[in-house]
Amino acid sequence: MTYGLFGKLTAQPGRRDELVEILTGAAAALEADPGCLHYVVATSAEPDDIWVWEAWTDKAAHDASLEPPEVREVITRAMPLIAGMSGSTEVDIVGGKGLPA
Amino acid sequence: MTYGLFGKLTAQPGRRDELVEILTGAAAALEADPGCLHYVVATSAEPDDIWVWEAWTDKAAHDASLEPPEVREVITRAMPLIAGMSGSTEVDIVGGKGLPA
Repeated sequence: MTYGLFGKLTAQPGRRDELVEILTGAAAALEADPGCLHYVVATSAEPDDIWVWEAWTDKAAHDASLEPPEVREVITRAMPLIAGMSGSTEVDIVGGKGLPA
Repeated sequence: MTYGLFGKLTAQPGRRDELVEILTGAAAALEADPGCLHYVVATSAEPDDIWVWEAWTDKAAHDASLEPPEVREVITRAMPLIAGMSGSTEVDIVGGKGLPA
């Protein structure tokens, strides 16, 4: 089943832009990962909040994407900028617009 | 700014599949709407919950999409199947994978 995940990150005060840059960089790297269908980085009205929407061919593809050393390095760089993580919701994608046929 | 929206619908007990079908039908209709980038229908582990992730060129495109009579008709059909709506979050999409360049 196509796997979806979305969650909210709260950046350390005043450091959202740096975290957004790291995450959009991660999204760019995922262009080469056929298992990743969507990796969308967004901000909300809350000044430190970042939302990420992800869609993957399946959960295994998502989990495997976290293993490479270069991804671990990105996570290590991002962690000090993160004040909190909340609302991570896993979903089974049924279908819709914007997904590969 | 590219507009994102996600929210949770809770179907009347046992009627999730019917509601999912209406929503995926709505997504199919949106294939013809250039303002709609993503309209993804998903279910979570909660038996009656449906999550929808939407991405639009901007909020105006989203708002305009709710006006046509045929969409109003779909909403009218869906309403009796909905027990609750919660967690609707509006976001400004910064970028990422799966969006048109």
